[in-house]
This record gives sequence, C-alpha cells and structure tokens, in this order.
Amino acid sequence: MPPRYEVIGVEGIPEVRPGDDVARFIVDAAARQSTPLRAADLVVVGQKIVSKAEGRLVRLADVTPSPVALSMAAGLGRDPRLVEVILRESRRVVRMDQGVLITETHHGWVCANAGVDQSNVELDCVALLPEDPDRSARLLRDRIRDLAGADVFVIVADTFGRPWREGLTNVAIGLAGFAPLRSYLGERDPAGRPLQATILALADELAAAAEPVMGKLDRIPAAIVRGIALTPGEEGSKPLLRDPVRDLFR
Amino acid sequence: MPPRYEVIGVEGIPEVRPGDDVARFIVDAAARQSTPLRAADLVVVGQKIVSKAEGRLVRLADVTPSPVALSMAAGLGRDPRLVEVILRESRRVVRMDQGVLITETHHGWVCANAGVDQSNVELDCVALLPEDPDRSARLLRDRIRDLAGADVFVIVADTFGRPWREGLTNVAIGLAGFAPLRSYLGERDPAGRPLQATILALADELAAAAEPVMGKLDRIPAAIVRGIALTPGEEGSKPLLRDPVRDLFR
Repeated sequence: MPPRYEVIGVEGIPEVRPGDDVARFIVDAAARQSTPLRAADLVVVGQKIVSKAEGRLVRLADVTPSPVALSMAAGLGRDPRLVEVILRESRRVVRMDQGVLITETHHGWVCANAGVDQSNVELDCVALLPEDPDRSARLLRDRIRDLAGADVFVIVADTFGRPWREGLTNVAIGLAGFAPLRSYLGERDPAGRPLQATILALADELAAAAEPVMGKLDRIPAAIVRGIALTPGEEGSKPLLRDPVRDLFR
Repeated sequence: MPPRYEVIGVEGIPEVRPGDDVARFIVDAAARQSTPLRAADLVVVGQKIVSKAEGRLVRLADVTPSPVALSMAAGLGRDPRLVEVILRESRRVVRMDQGVLITETHHGWVCANAGVDQSNVELDCVALLPEDPDRSARLLRDRIRDLAGADVFVIVADTFGRPWREGLTNVAIGLAGFAPLRSYLGERDPAGRPLQATILALADELAAAAEPVMGKLDRIPAAIVRGIALTPGEEGSKPLLRDPVRDLFR
C-alpha cells in the first residue's frame, strides 16, 4: 500500500468571539460534516480564530503612537497606531523598507508586521498573534481530547511571506503533541553516502498542506490532516526557530 | 461536502538513468499500486530523478576549479570542484558564510549550493537542477497525456532551506498546466475590508504537501495530489520568482 494521507476542510465554524470555545466549534463542525475527529488526526487551526477567542484584539482608536512609531510610520507610509502595535509585538526590526515592516516577534518568528493583521476582524480593530501559540495548541489538544475522546495533534498556523519567492505560505507558529522536524541524520543513500538535506520542516509542510482547503475569507479556519504518522514530542514549535547565530539573513 | 484532497506516494519507480522515460515510470508505478493517474491529478516529481533522466550529472573528477572557486572553497572549507560546479550554476552569490554558499541560480531561484546535490547519485558525481524545470514539467505533462490519456498538472520540486526557520521544505522549481499563485486581490472580508494577505503560493504549498509521502532516500520520488481544483495557466513557475527590486533580502 502506498503512503497516503488526506486533508479535509472543517466547514461551519461560527464567527469566533473572545472567550469562545474554539475546540468545541471544531469538534462539532467536524462531526456535523461526517468527518468526526479521530485519534492521530492532525488539526490545523488558523491563528486568527485562536487570537479572537483569546481576546488578542486591539482597537486602533485606543492606541497612542510613540514618537518612534510616528517617525517610522511616516517613512513607511503606514498608520502610526498600527506601527505602534507592531513594535509592541516585536523584539527587533529585521527590515523596514518599501512600506514593509519585517520584525522578529517576542516568540522569535520573523514575519511582516509581527503577524498583526487587519483582515477578518471588526473595523478599526487588529488581531495580534496568540501570546503563546504553543500553549494555545496544547490547550486545544487537551480540550479536543476531553470533548471528542480523540488524542489529536494540533498546529496553530499563519500565512507568512518569505524572501525571494512570491506568495505567502501557511506555516506553523505553535503546535502540540509531535516533533515538528523530521530528521534523516545518520541515514545513507543507496551509494552509502550520508544524506545531505537531512532535516525537513514537517510541521510547516503540513501547515502548508492544510491551507488549500482553508478559506482566506475566514469561512474555513481549520482543517484535518488524516493519515500521516507523526513522532510524539512535547517541545512545541521551538525546534522550528533557527538559532540566530546560524542565520545569515538577520 | 467539505473541501478535501488526497496525497498519494508513488512507489516502485526504478533507479533512473540518463535517457530514461520518467513519465512512463510514474504512469506504470501508479497503475501497479492501483492509483492510476486521472485527469486533473497534480503529479509532484522530485527534481533528482528529472535531473538524472536529463543527464544533469557531473563527475567531480572531471572538474577543474577556477582560481575563484579555489579561493572560495578554502574560505568555506568545501571541495573546490564542488564550489566550481555551484558557481557555474549560479548568476549571483547571495551569502557565503559558515560553510554555506547561497546563490541565485540561472533560473532565478535562491537556494543553497545552487541546488547542486550529492545525495542519491553515484559516488564522485553531483546532480544539477534541470536546465529548464518548466520545460521538464511540460514534457512530463505531455508524455503522461500520451501514455495514460490523462490531462494532469505537474510540479518539479526540490527541498530548499529558508531564512529564520529550521528545516527544509519542498517547493516548486518548475511546473506545467496551472497558475502557481492564488490571488484574493479585490476580495473583501466579512467587515467589507480588502483582504491583506492576498496572494498565496499554492504551488509551493502543494509541493510541500507532497513531501511527507516522498522518500528522502529516493525510493518514492513522486506523489499524486488528487482533488484540488487548479486554475489553468501556462506561465510555468515564473510567477513564483519575486522581482529583485521588491525583495529586501538580496
């Protein structure tokens, strides 16, 4: 039997508000569409509904930009209140040019606008990334186990741009239950030579795999990846962060 | 019905040699495992078997390093013959540090070692990327149509590293039959606001989706992605190349 797996969008998740039980929404919606969650399923959840449920929303009218934010915003041609929020969510500015602000978040992710996003939230509001996406993923995993009796894996995902290539791809910013990297270190090719490209970012590949069935208009904010054998692990997403000393693009 | 698709590894493809008919290998192997290719399937093929079939192999014993390659190789602690091959495959060096050589290939892809790889080829040989991976994809597509009567889409994929994040992911370096970017430009969120993250790199996400069923040890060098609706397009992979003037990391 060839290796195979399936990716299934979860439809019918309602609009999420602060305090909502996202795990219940996903469990119920998956059951309603006759794809109830099963043990070893990987559940990929869009960051936006996690942030909303956790109340990670900021009303721009309530933000007073600092002098630094005012100055940067003028150079970028952006809303100074938005720049203020982005800087609060960042520990370092990586690039600032052509209206683009790329920063390193407090979690260590490098992305545009520190992941702060204005789409699919109320007007005049912005959504921040979850404060601790690995914790968010663990809580979703625990709650799904309680509700559905299924021991699943969880990814909290967001769409990030990347250098050199057009278009965003979905990546894992938090995860629970499995090891995000798959290593071939020590294995050899048929010629007996150690493999070169030895560590694959499996969690990012599976987050990417989920995106094509997820709706950018926020109508399908979660997907089930079914049939992939994952290696249990409790390190969360941290192994996906490149050590800055080994990074040539900071 | 929720949106769903499936990813199926293609087992039993023999060791590929220059001049081999890779399309026939894939068509036959897919049929043997009872997943014959169907119209609208996306076939993701690892770059290595395409390069081998196209004879894109270089014996290091036949390479005379230039003075520049000798000097760079000394700084990097690498084989000067390998550095010579990498430089020949490159139009620009993007970063050179810590033993890592990141270049822009003649196609415009930015990656480590210009995609030159020593794994899964004969000892003392290296494999280059296909000369024109879009053409390779088109030829595979045409040949599969002839052999299987199925109008499929094709991606030629390789695993590339990326800044800031650990681990490689599979990306598209050539493709045929569909538009690699999916755009939401002009669409609005439920609050009526134009969507921010508007262009997704669908081809890279589907290349990534294929990787978990493909064998790094070269035993499963192709996969079928079945059930995704793709938009026909004849531009190949070019839309995935970011315009250098809009790239902040060169």
